[in-house]
Order: sequence, then structure tokens, then C-alpha cells
Amino acid sequence: MPDNAKTQCLIGVDLGGTKILAGIFDTSFNCLGQVKISTKAHRGPDEVINRIARCVKDTVDECDLSMSQVRGVGIGAPGAVDTQEGRVIFAPNLGWENLQLKKSLEKQLEVPVFVENDCKLHTLGVFEAELKAKPKHLLGIFLGTGIGAGIIIDGKPYTGINGTAGEVGHMVIDINGPECGCGNKGCFEALASRRAIFRNIQAAVKKGQKTLLTEMLGDDLADLRSGDLRKAIRRGDKFVEKIIDQAAEYTGIAVGNLMNIFNPEVIVIGGGVVEQLEHEMLPIIEKVARKNALPGTSKGVQIMATRLGDDAGITGGAVLVMRQTK
Amino acid sequence: MPDNAKTQCLIGVDLGGTKILAGIFDTSFNCLGQVKISTKAHRGPDEVINRIARCVKDTVDECDLSMSQVRGVGIGAPGAVDTQEGRVIFAPNLGWENLQLKKSLEKQLEVPVFVENDCKLHTLGVFEAELKAKPKHLLGIFLGTGIGAGIIIDGKPYTGINGTAGEVGHMVIDINGPECGCGNKGCFEALASRRAIFRNIQAAVKKGQKTLLTEMLGDDLADLRSGDLRKAIRRGDKFVEKIIDQAAEYTGIAVGNLMNIFNPEVIVIGGGVVEQLEHEMLPIIEKVARKNALPGTSKGVQIMATRLGDDAGITGGAVLVMRQTK
Repeated sequence: MPDNAKTQCLIGVDLGGTKILAGIFDTSFNCLGQVKISTKAHRGPDEVINRIARCVKDTVDECDLSMSQVRGVGIGAPGAVDTQEGRVIFAPNLGWENLQLKKSLEKQLEVPVFVENDCKLHTLGVFEAELKAKPKHLLGIFLGTGIGAGIIIDGKPYTGINGTAGEVGHMVIDINGPECGCGNKGCFEALASRRAIFRNIQAAVKKGQKTLLTEMLGDDLADLRSGDLRKAIRRGDKFVEKIIDQAAEYTGIAVGNLMNIFNPEVIVIGGGVVEQLEHEMLPIIEKVARKNALPGTSKGVQIMATRLGDDAGITGGAVLVMRQTK
Repeated sequence: MPDNAKTQCLIGVDLGGTKILAGIFDTSFNCLGQVKISTKAHRGPDEVINRIARCVKDTVDECDLSMSQVRGVGIGAPGAVDTQEGRVIFAPNLGWENLQLKKSLEKQLEVPVFVENDCKLHTLGVFEAELKAKPKHLLGIFLGTGIGAGIIIDGKPYTGINGTAGEVGHMVIDINGPECGCGNKGCFEALASRRAIFRNIQAAVKKGQKTLLTEMLGDDLADLRSGDLRKAIRRGDKFVEKIIDQAAEYTGIAVGNLMNIFNPEVIVIGGGVVEQLEHEMLPIIEKVARKNALPGTSKGVQIMATRLGDDAGITGGAVLVMRQTK
């Protein structure tokens, strides 16, 4: 472990609907260790906050460090965040509304805590720790249970006037498409998120569709994960392949739209779905996006998958602490 | 005329598919005079460039000024522009490709010429000359023959990596919608631009649809203008009203998407279609946009029509000269 890590550690936390991942970093954003525990959102916000604090302390302990060596904690929450107050405005996957996450955690951890939307933090992590040649304008698009994005303009996170910019998952691309959780029809998220993909598969299976997935997981597909889709496709399941092709095509249209709107230097695509199905999805996403965007907005724009995977969020959390405590 | 105008005049030019409008401004962006002539794009680029130069000189002469008192000319072109070189990359409504507009005009006018995309210039004009309380982040959306936008972030024009950001007209919102000139289906522009509206009306009339428009203009509707639609609606034409309601609803969905993506402080809507049909369209646009956007991205965001009308482009041209020659 480098010397400065002993006095200046940064902690990043990725808070998801199913798991909490905490990582400890030195000031060059090298990960020194990480701990993952389940979120248990059904136990209520107080219990989840206790678990986040425990996960942070366990990570520090794993690395034989103490909280006094921690400069701060940066945490990404799956929803809308008031970054000034460190308040989670709304996080549907956790069932949270208007929660003072910063205050509660600072009381327990006695170090500064910074809260940001998870996709914005993922993007910050990719920008700072993965991309060597810093792009001027970067768009990070993340496909998980939901779909969100982070925007970096002129090397700085762009968050809009309420801090809520980047809700690309609720860009309508098929006005007559399936209903979205937000109440609209045909949002990007209602067409290509993990939830949308699973819903399409489960609906087809209920109608008698044959698939290797039921052999692997049983008829109810209760434990279905993105990785299972990859396994089924690689074992020749044409039905699952078609579902994933379709999601990739919708994603390509959304990425083409965003290329036309932003004309960024780099578009990074990540999230659990893409991490598991990059090989299957990315070529289709890129092909459709470039076909759909105007030549002038697509030319020279790089489209790539993040290599950070699950670590993007915790890395971004560490970057946030670094930027906020400079 | 203020004194400094005699030594420091700024000229803005709005180059459209059908007309060239030039305006002369003092350094406080007060318009001192303007001249409008037709574009005659069919006569070819050389002739159009001659006409732009003539229009600029006529405007100067109208105000009893001379070109030696002109600090520069800012011109908005309907298409993709390389602002560094002042080159029009592609302007489909003029039939232009790869045209050195800056160089050619500077030779004729002997003052500095700056070229920008027309919608970006409209937005700059609104930002600088219309909005007293400067919004931090502004989106200008303009519905004319086509649809385009200008983006201002942190008070500065955002143009992307190739200078082509803001192509919101080619955001797909109805994946199965009508074909767009760009080759995609269901672009915003293919659903709500003047061209889309006229196409829908003419197709329905061909199929026998009754409308006051044919009484006003004859069966071929050859001289149809946006203002005629307003007149027909105000005289009770339910068919035209429905067509315009539909275009406004599509626009509302597009604006909702952009609110989710940008969460700007202000969204200004303009262009020939909205200038003529503001009363009919704006309430629908705003209602649908706010219904479609997430509460967190819509809250506090102001949606308004520009009061500058046709003058937005020339005002923006003057602002561009001011910014480039500071």
C-alpha cells in the first residue's frame, strides 16, 4: 500500500437495490480493498443506512486501516439526489423518498459524506480512472434494473439546474411502446433495461415460449440474472438472442439520439446488463447508433464499453470525495 | 442612433431556404435597421453569396452608414457548420455541401465574417438580447421547415466535439413513425416541422379532406404558409386544429425528453411555426412536456416562446460578432 494511503484514504460506495458495495482507494484511485453486502431494502431506510455504515467500516477494517485515515465517503444512490444537502429525493428501487442520507451517515461514520446519483458517479469514475486521454465531452449510459446516464461537459459533470440532468432512461423513443414505471409509454428504460428484458422473457414463457432458461432456472425464472441470458445465448437459445438483439437495437436508437443531441467525444456504455452481454449487445448498439445519427454528429465519436464493470461506482465515489475535499 | 453605433456596428444575417434577412445593430443589440430579400437558392451558391453581400450592403446604406463602420458580420446558416473555418458542411434546404461561406463573403465585404448554425444563433440572440435574468442553462428549440436547437450551458454555447450538437430534430420519438429526410423513422422533425405539418395536410386533402385552406388557397395549396393555418383554425377549421394539436403533442414529448436529459433552467421555443401558432401550440406543448418529464427534471424549469420572432437570428448574428471580436 502506498504511503499516502495511510493518511488519505477515499471511500466509494455503490448503493443498489440488491447490494451495497464499498471500496477503499488511495489518492491515485487504486482500489485497496472492497466489501459487498446485501441491501435488504425491505427492512427500511434506517436499517439500510446502518448496513452502509457497517459495510464502510468493514472495508476499512479489511485493509487494516482506521476511520481516522479516511478523508471522506462518496456514495452513489439509485435515484434523484439533492447533492447540496446529500438528500435522496426519490429512489424507487429502494422505496426511499426524501431521505437525509448524508446527515445520517456522517453521524455514524464521523467523516464527510457526499451523495450523488449512481449513474453520474459511474461516469465520473470512468472519466477519472479509466480514460487516460480525458475526453472533453463524455456521456456515460448505464443499463441495469433501470437506465441512467452521466454527462461530462468540458471535463466537468453537468447536472442541470436541479441536479437531475441525465435521465435518458425516460427519453420516449417509441410513443406507442410498452408502459414505463414513470407513467409514459415507450421510454428507453421500458424497452431495454434489465426489468424490460426480464418482463419480455417472462411474458413469452408464460405464453408457452420454449427456452433454455427454464431448464436452467425452473419455470418461474425467479432467480433470473443477466449472466443467465449470456449463458443461454452461448448455448444456442435463439429466443433469448432475439430478445437481447431487440434491446440492443433500442439502445442503439437511444444512443443515436444522444449523439445527435450532444455530439460528445466519447460515449461509454456500462451497467450490469452490458457487463454481462457486451459481446452480444455492443456491436448492434454501435451499428444502429451510427446508422441513426447524422454523419456530422457521429463522425469521430468513440463508442465503447467500460472496463471498470462493478467498480465504476465505487471508483466514482472516491473521485467525488477527492473533488469535494480538494 | 447612439454615438458608438457610428463606429461600431454589428451585422447579423439569417440565411434561410426562402429569404435572407440582414439587420444592423449597435453594441447594446438595438436594431438600427434591416433588409429582407429572397434567397433564390435555385440559382446556385455563388448567386446566393452575392445576394447575401448585397443584402448586407443595402442594410448599411439604409442606415446611412458605411462598411468601414461595421465591426463584422455574423451569419446563421440552415445546416451543419464548421465554425472554425466558417464553412457550411451541409445545408439540405439550400442544396449546399462543403461551402466556404466565410472566405467568399469576407472577400466581398472586407470585414470579418463569422458563420454558425441558424438555431444556435437564434438561441444566442434570445439569451443575450431577450432574457434579462441570464439562465445558467438554456435550451432553444426552433420549429421551422426543419427543427433544430441551440444549447447554452453555464452561460456559454455548447456545440459538441464537431460543432454539431443540438440536432434535436433527429431525435427518434416514434420508432414506427413516418420517414424523415435523414432516412430514419419517427424523428421529431418528421412529426412536427412545417414540412411534416404541410405534408399531413396535403395528403389528407388529396384523399378528399375538406378544409378552409383550399377555399383560401386553391386545391393544390401551393402557397400554404404557417400563418394560413392560424387563420383557418381561428375561423373554426377543426381538421387543421387537429393537425396542429398533434404536432404540438409530439413537440411536448420531445420537450419532455429534453427536459429529462438536460434539466435546463429555461426552454425557449420559437421558429416560424411557433411564431404563427404560439397561442394554439404552446399550452399543449407545455402540458404534455410537464406530464412526460419526471417531476425532478421539470420542477422550476421555465418553458416560454421567444418574443424576438424573426429577429432572433439577426440578433444572434450581432451577438456572435460581439463575442468573436471582443
